[in-house]
Formats: sequence, C-alpha cells, structure tokens
Amino acid sequence: MDVYTIAVIPGDGIGREVVPAAVEVLKVLAEVHGGFHFKFQEFPWSCDYYAEHGEMMPADGLDILKGFDAIFLGAVGNPGLVPDHISLWGLLLKIRREFEQVINVRPAKALKGVASPLTDPQGFDLVVVRENSEGEYSEIGGRLHRGDDEMAIQAAVFTRKGTERVMRYAFELARTRRKHVTSATKSNGIYHTMPFWDEVFKDVQRDYRDVRVDSYHIDALAAQFVARPYVFDVVVASNLFGDILTDISGAVMGSIGIAPAANINVNGRYPSMFEPVHGSAPDIAGRGIANPIGQIWTGALMLEHFGHRDAAQELLQVMEDVTAEGIKTPDIGGHSGTRDVSDEICRRLRRR
Amino acid sequence: MDVYTIAVIPGDGIGREVVPAAVEVLKVLAEVHGGFHFKFQEFPWSCDYYAEHGEMMPADGLDILKGFDAIFLGAVGNPGLVPDHISLWGLLLKIRREFEQVINVRPAKALKGVASPLTDPQGFDLVVVRENSEGEYSEIGGRLHRGDDEMAIQAAVFTRKGTERVMRYAFELARTRRKHVTSATKSNGIYHTMPFWDEVFKDVQRDYRDVRVDSYHIDALAAQFVARPYVFDVVVASNLFGDILTDISGAVMGSIGIAPAANINVNGRYPSMFEPVHGSAPDIAGRGIANPIGQIWTGALMLEHFGHRDAAQELLQVMEDVTAEGIKTPDIGGHSGTRDVSDEICRRLRRR
Ligand SMILES: CC(C)[C@H](C(=O)O)[C@@H](O)C(=O)O
Ligand SMILES: CC(C)[C@H](C(=O)O)[C@@H](O)C(=O)O
Repeated sequence: MDVYTIAVIPGDGIGREVVPAAVEVLKVLAEVHGGFHFKFQEFPWSCDYYAEHGEMMPADGLDILKGFDAIFLGAVGNPGLVPDHISLWGLLLKIRREFEQVINVRPAKALKGVASPLTDPQGFDLVVVRENSEGEYSEIGGRLHRGDDEMAIQAAVFTRKGTERVMRYAFELARTRRKHVTSATKSNGIYHTMPFWDEVFKDVQRDYRDVRVDSYHIDALAAQFVARPYVFDVVVASNLFGDILTDISGAVMGSIGIAPAANINVNGRYPSMFEPVHGSAPDIAGRGIANPIGQIWTGALMLEHFGHRDAAQELLQVMEDVTAEGIKTPDIGGHSGTRDVSDEICRRLRRR
Repeated sequence: MDVYTIAVIPGDGIGREVVPAAVEVLKVLAEVHGGFHFKFQEFPWSCDYYAEHGEMMPADGLDILKGFDAIFLGAVGNPGLVPDHISLWGLLLKIRREFEQVINVRPAKALKGVASPLTDPQGFDLVVVRENSEGEYSEIGGRLHRGDDEMAIQAAVFTRKGTERVMRYAFELARTRRKHVTSATKSNGIYHTMPFWDEVFKDVQRDYRDVRVDSYHIDALAAQFVARPYVFDVVVASNLFGDILTDISGAVMGSIGIAPAANINVNGRYPSMFEPVHGSAPDIAGRGIANPIGQIWTGALMLEHFGHRDAAQELLQVMEDVTAEGIKTPDIGGHSGTRDVSDEICRRLRRR
C-alpha cells in the first residue's frame, strides 16, 4: 500500500472552499480504489495568516513542506488585505521557486456538459507546458527617482538551461500525445530574450525530428486559442505567456474554474505542487458556489504524478459524468454548490 | 480644402495587398465627400528592401517621413527573409519610437455580417489604449555566457511619465464613451513594474472620479475578453499586454484581419501612423484573399484623427453594409477577394 503525505494549503478565498471539497473526493477515491492512501495535513498559510503574523508562512514553512510527498494548494491572494505581489511572492511563487518546480503543466480540453463560449471548439485537447522558474517573473529590478521622473525597471531572465528544460519536457510529452509542439514567442517585439527563446527551440527540435513543430507570436497565438484551439497539441511557453494562455484555454473550456495545473519538480529533490489555474476569486468567495472541478482535476494530476493513472482516469471519468448530468456550479451554467458537485462525485465513486 | 500628405508603406506580405485596396477606398471617399484631399506617396520599405539594401529603410527614411501629415502602413515581417526582431525594430517599431507615437488606440466591436467565434458576444464595443513607447518592448538587455550557461536578459522599463500619459489618454477617451476604464496589470507576478503600474493607476483615477474603474490581472483579463467582452469599455494596457489583448479582441470580432489601429503622436512634433493590428500573414500573402477591412477601418481612424468624423463614420457605415451583405473574404466566412471587397466599398461610396 503506497502512502502519500500531502501538505494541504487551502490559501485564500475560494481556495478554502474547493480544497476541502477536493480533499474529500481524493479520500473517497483512495478508499474505494485501494492500493494507495493519503495522509493529509492542513496549513493555514494565507493572507489572513499574514494579517496575524506579518508573513505568509512561518520562517520554517519550507522546511516543513519539504518532508511531504506533494503539496495540494488552493489559491493565494486577497488584495484587500495584502498587496498581491507580497502575498504571491511570499507563498505560491516562493514554493515554486524554492522547490525548483520548474515546469507547470496545464491541460485543457472540451469537457462533456460544459459549454464552451466558442461556437466551434471541435473537441480541442491541448496541454500548455509553462516555464515556471524564471523568465518574466523575477525579483530583479527596482525603482529610480521620485515624482515625475519616477521609473520602474524589471528584468526578464531566460537561461539556456531553463529554456531547454521546459522545451524538452514539452517534446517528451508530445511524444505521448499527437506529436506536435507549438512554441509561444514574441521575437518580433521582445528584442533580446525572445529571439534567444526561438534559437533554443530550433536547437532542441533537432533531437525530436518525429515531432511536428510550429511557432507563433504570443499575440497571434492567443487569438488562435480563440479561433482554432483544436489545432494545438502541446504548447510550450514562457512563464508569463504560459500564464496568459492557460487562462484563455480555461475560458475556452467554459470556465477558468475547471482548469487544472501541476507545478513539477523534475530533479526529485523537493515535492511537486498541485494547484489549479484559477485564483482566489474574492468576488464569489464564501458563497459556496465556487467550482471545485479545477481543484479536483488537479488532484487527478497529482495521482498521475504518483503513477496511479488508473485512479486518475477513473476520477476524471466520474467528474465528467457528473458535469455531463448537469450537476455543476453557476459559472458553467448549473445551479449546484461546491459541495453538491463534490458530494455527487464521492457518491458515484463509492457506487462503482 | 484640407490637403493631407500621406506616406504609404505597404511593407510585407498582405500589407502589399490591403494597403493599395485601402488607398483606393480613401481616394474615392475624398472624391465623393469633398472638403479634403489626400496626396499619397508610396515607399517600398520592407524585408525585400532589406534583402537588397541591408536595411529596412534608407538612412534618411525618418527625415523623409517627418514631412508627411501621417503614415499609412500595412504590415512588416517576413521571417523567411529577415529575422523578425531586425525587420520590426528597423521599421515599424523604429517609427513608433522615433516619432514618439506613444499611444496605440485599438477599437474592437461586433460588426454586422461578421460572425464572432463566441456564442454570446452581445454587441461588445471596446477600445484598448496601449502604451506604445516603452514597457516590455525595449532594446535594453543582452546575452551572457555561451553554451550551457548562456542566458538572455531583457529589461522592461515603465516611466511615470509614459504610464500616466497612456492612462490619462484612456480616461479622456472613456469620458467620450461609457466612462469605464479597466487596467490590465500583473502585479501578482511581475514584481517591480506592475505594482508601479497599479500605483500610477490609483493616482490618475483621482482626477477622473466620474469614470468607473477596475483592474484585472492580464491572465484573467484575457479570459474575460473571451467570456464577457461586452463588460469592457476602455482598457488601458502596457505595450505587451495591449498587443496580446488586441489580437484577442480581433479574434473575438471574428478575424484579426478586421482589427484597426492608430499609433498616435500626442505632442504634435511628428506624424502619427495608421497600421492595422494584423501582421504580414506570409501564409496567405499573394493570393488576393487578405481581408482589407482592418486596413480600411484603420483609414477611418486616420480620418477621425484629422477631424473628419463624418467622413470616417460614412466609411465605417459603408464598410459594414458591404460585410453585412456577405461581400467578404474567406477569413470571415465569405468568398470574395481583397479587391472585390474594396471595389464594392468604392462603388457604394460613389452611389451615395
Ligand atoms: C509586429 C509586432 C512587433 C507588433 C507589436 O507587437 O507591436 C504587432 O504585433 C502589433 O500589434 O502592432
Ligand atoms: C497568482 C499568480 C502569481 C499566478 C501566476 O501568474 O503564476 C497565477 O496566475 C497562476 O497562473 O498560477
């Protein structure tokens, strides 16, 4: 019996609603599936925690997390309480960085029972592989002067190592799928880093001649996600571009509330973190209507990561059955609450 | 009789098809409308020009352009011939920078006869006001090391002056519309420049208390452009974010081929430049099927800029009548060629 220790961080806003719901589902799945078992331990690290302690997590927070097999996180951010760049760099982005979760994997596909806002999504099925450790997200930069002459500067840093790594990950993944990798670039406007990105892409593709490649500037690619999402298989993107593309692909699925994600540590030194694409959604928090599907699907990615493909498949199947039958939250046109959805998934898992 | 001298730069790819078509339309409009007259002069600056001369435009190119009332540009880029960052920074971006065209105005709305890919676009009508002189597009940066240790660094620079300027422009524009400004930020992930952007937005909004404001992170905003484009009026964005958002809003209209844009010089020292959102589209160039609507609508923005609102309105009206009747290019579901569309617009302008 495989036992996995999972650090659970609901975080802020709807994270506190969807995480408990998804944990419940995972517990039931383990129970009925057998073969593996979870030990969940919850941590209250969040903006509220910051309000009380002046930091997003305790000084030894990372040490504590390090001992777990994975981290299951909801969402971070409550700009009314803590400025976003403080809360995010103090928790979510800190974990991604310190635990070398250098790859962010974000699948998106047409789901039964979830209407896409597109008239013709044609059963699209893609994965964005996002660089998760460098690029446009950096703490390098600062401000100069005051008053009218004030300016802010921010450096984007792209290393060959980090860039190659995410591209190779994308190519390997493509080999298990439809063997097509699309690169998101902006080498026409972003003068230094993006031509570099293109060069590395050209280098890496030489090792994967069996994989079809193409490349779009991010503006055109974002438009294509709307116009023809079904032409993409694996899309490899920088930190920022991957962030933007996966909110779009979430919207194209029907709701950002259903989009799953995995922050993968590839060197085995630290736990990976599983956290959906959506944010803390302060506007709907506390009303029990947040969509738990993104968090539950993210749980399935965690199972896959542990090698339990069957259980992951089973969970996705039941999840889709439930939405297909109309038991779903308002963001995807239903009338159910967060717990109605997760309870129904549990009930069906038990019945199988 | 107002006479306007216009420097015409068709540029690359479909620019060479849609620009002549749009120039024809503008000539006819001037003829039938009276009150103003255009003097067009064409320049062959492009990637082909580069192939011959080793530069995108002659050394005195900017001096030549300076004497015109406006620049009417098609598209730049032919990556098969010249790397994109060379061609763009040698022509399009160079003109934007040197001529202090600090604001890029890009309207998008539901057009009659053009099917949106969205099931429910609800007659959306928005304008993205894009910072056009700094931000993520800079020549500041470079490379370090070779081989495995290679890295590329790129600085994004946001000045208070540039940021305030684009925001004030957006607020002033909103006062002539539905009095709502949305700020595109990413202050949760982009640590230095985006919190600065938010601060400036807070400062500027104090002078426009009659205007409703909100703020979205770029990822969420991109998703909202797909989910609910109709909730936006004026959206103010950085150089890169504005670039991405306007390709999305173009796609949401039904085709990036119809999206218009104006690069505005606000200090009166240099001409402004009118250039649609779409690129040179090498894949369809030379086939006579490029959509001229983006370039023609861009011509209407030029007329508005010169103060000829009536003529601009008339042109938009006829343009929409023509697409509404199904005389349109394949990208928006029609069977007509570039010239069929522009000829029909000319014919109708003459008949009025
Ligand atoms: C060609 C490219 C550099 C340009 C930009 O990114 O500004 C284009 O996409 C645009 O939107 O005008
Ligand atoms: C909250 C934010 C910093 C984060 C990101 O931009 O990475 C989020 O949008 C995501 O996609 O995980």
